[in-house]
Amino acid sequence: MAGASDKAVFRATTTAPVNIAVIKYWGKRDPTLNLPTNSSLSVTLSQRSLRTLTTASCSAVYPAADELILNGKPQDIQSSKRTLACLASLRSHRQAVEAADPSLPKLSTFPLRIVSQNNFPTAAGLASSAAGFAALVRAVADLYQLPQTPLELSRIARQGSGSACRSLMGGYVAWRAGSLADGSDSLAEEVAPQSHWPEMRAVVLVVSAEKKDVPSTEGMQTTVATSNLFAARVASVVPERMAAIETAIQNRDFPSFAEITMRDSNGFHATCLDSWPPIFYMNDVSRAAVRLVHDINTAAGRTVCAYTFDAGPNAVIYYLDEDSELVAGTVKAVLKSDTEGFEGPFNERVKDITTPGVSLDKIDSRAVDVLRDGVNRVILTGVGEGPISVEEHLVSETGEVLSQ
Amino acid sequence: MAGASDKAVFRATTTAPVNIAVIKYWGKRDPTLNLPTNSSLSVTLSQRSLRTLTTASCSAVYPAADELILNGKPQDIQSSKRTLACLASLRSHRQAVEAADPSLPKLSTFPLRIVSQNNFPTAAGLASSAAGFAALVRAVADLYQLPQTPLELSRIARQGSGSACRSLMGGYVAWRAGSLADGSDSLAEEVAPQSHWPEMRAVVLVVSAEKKDVPSTEGMQTTVATSNLFAARVASVVPERMAAIETAIQNRDFPSFAEITMRDSNGFHATCLDSWPPIFYMNDVSRAAVRLVHDINTAAGRTVCAYTFDAGPNAVIYYLDEDSELVAGTVKAVLKSDTEGFEGPFNERVKDITTPGVSLDKIDSRAVDVLRDGVNRVILTGVGEGPISVEEHLVSETGEVLSQ
Repeated sequence: MAGASDKAVFRATTTAPVNIAVIKYWGKRDPTLNLPTNSSLSVTLSQRSLRTLTTASCSAVYPAADELILNGKPQDIQSSKRTLACLASLRSHRQAVEAADPSLPKLSTFPLRIVSQNNFPTAAGLASSAAGFAALVRAVADLYQLPQTPLELSRIARQGSGSACRSLMGGYVAWRAGSLADGSDSLAEEVAPQSHWPEMRAVVLVVSAEKKDVPSTEGMQTTVATSNLFAARVASVVPERMAAIETAIQNRDFPSFAEITMRDSNGFHATCLDSWPPIFYMNDVSRAAVRLVHDINTAAGRTVCAYTFDAGPNAVIYYLDEDSELVAGTVKAVLKSDTEGFEGPFNERVKDITTPGVSLDKIDSRAVDVLRDGVNRVILTGVGEGPISVEEHLVSETGEVLSQ
Repeated sequence: MAGASDKAVFRATTTAPVNIAVIKYWGKRDPTLNLPTNSSLSVTLSQRSLRTLTTASCSAVYPAADELILNGKPQDIQSSKRTLACLASLRSHRQAVEAADPSLPKLSTFPLRIVSQNNFPTAAGLASSAAGFAALVRAVADLYQLPQTPLELSRIARQGSGSACRSLMGGYVAWRAGSLADGSDSLAEEVAPQSHWPEMRAVVLVVSAEKKDVPSTEGMQTTVATSNLFAARVASVVPERMAAIETAIQNRDFPSFAEITMRDSNGFHATCLDSWPPIFYMNDVSRAAVRLVHDINTAAGRTVCAYTFDAGPNAVIYYLDEDSELVAGTVKAVLKSDTEGFEGPFNERVKDITTPGVSLDKIDSRAVDVLRDGVNRVILTGVGEGPISVEEHLVSETGEVLSQ
């Protein structure tokens, strides 16, 4: 039996999405297991705009050490405890599968070769680690033909990068903080599928691709240890918001969804500022985007858009497809005409717009100036599906690394 | 008896200082009486650098309506409930004095003419209203020869502008929030006189003289009504900091004073950001000043300076005179050579500095660029005295308004 697999290369390839939280994950109660201080909730973004493509392969003929090649660069897996933890969990699940059916090839004993490519710049505040670990876990699970559900796999992905657990599903995804010390109840679950509220759109204003001042793992631990206001966020603010935004999603109530999203982003950045030393992720361009969104909503006479900011200055602005002209159209009119990103997916209702949905004299003129100078690229996207199995492998049938 | 005063013009003139809080006043529990949600503490700044000069005069020959002329511009007193409240309290105290000694002229029945001049731009985030109301109350109290102590007068000044109560005293001044509904226990008191710790210095980085986005009275009410994190600040954070910073002041413990000051500024701005809609007073230049201060402290190997920001982007950086070269010298080296304000009072240890106290390669280069572009003026100052009675009147013996 083992004969057939002696020289074979086993492969599975998946894509995985980025997710952008509307209730923010910030703070670990257990840094090793990546257990959060509070629950969080995100929108999975369409892989038509942003995705990681990962091929997991294994073979008895590979060199003994597992390999990971990310955007063409070999990574030092041994120095990444998080990657090691994910691979160890996945191998252990495979061992259980193999123990239950001795006819299966012993893939758990073969070295892995994992090749991954993003279609967007890493470390630009675009949650690349979430998509990356989700793709890695999904691809290896597929390679190993594991029976675990996405909910169960989210426990593994969480150990790679907390927010990665939310990228294993599409639509609207909650990560339940859980309370057990071993983290077994700290899992992601789908609150609503993409099909429940498919009209959700987002435009990302890419403010700067500079590396972050304070990496988020370090930043969140500083906040937990030093912010005097953080305990209130964890104890009461987030639990109330989680319940309220889940209701808003169930009811497809955009104004409520939007206000909760904006307030949670502001509250998260407030606890960063309250940390010692203080942490700043938003800059003057981010603040101009906040002003733009409030001004569009005021001019529209209803809440048609919502900003949120992760651990970086990029603004993610959510809106509904029916308000594309009002929101993305106004953003387009505000920015320079050579701004990149108004082509491609999700541009149907925006590509031909030449006049803004909201008259620019309703937008603070300083905000317009700051945004025009500070934003050179946008990404149009929308709510999307979870990981998708594909045949577009990054490793050949004989084990060579392929470039896309 | 009344004959002599029939045509006489009675005058009293005082100067009053600016104060800059190190524990911030933000939030009113009673907007009419200006009763705060929390206690606060400030450093009174020297009037050699910043002061309001106010002459209060009254005369039976003046037109019937009270007059207030601020920086050459007549003000509409009737539309300022706060000014009316202060004047009514002062008149009522004068009436008590007159009732006790009928030989005194009935100044309480005479129209007032009050003339006030700042030596710095108003509404530039420099607490001009605090100095202004403190000077007004002190000048009228002197005109009326009231027996009330500064502590008692602080109750009146508080009704004009909350933080004005702290400008009636020199040195280090606490405003006790009090708990009574009528505000009678909401008073300012000297924690330590200037002479206790006279080495305290401050350099103000004047970032922008633009009008504020959100006036502080409106902003603080928004925060009280909407910030989910504000209650924690009021209930526990500020009381602990008040006790700790008073101890630091008694012990002349600059590192503790500095850390509490910086953390309280950050926490205050965090609650602003957590408000709905969010309030931003700090901008990228403010954040560069934060970075500069942390970098100077790191390079010095001890805490030699502390930033604080009021409801605006200006940075106030406290330091001790002995560290002038390290702090003000580095600030001077960072800024453009034509930056205004390195002459005049408090420049003794800085005027001849040509090399920074801290090598500029220890300072984040982006922060240096942002500060160099964004700061055109500094104010050198230090801890100072309370209001001072002077003979330099802004109203002539015959009642004409004089210009300085």
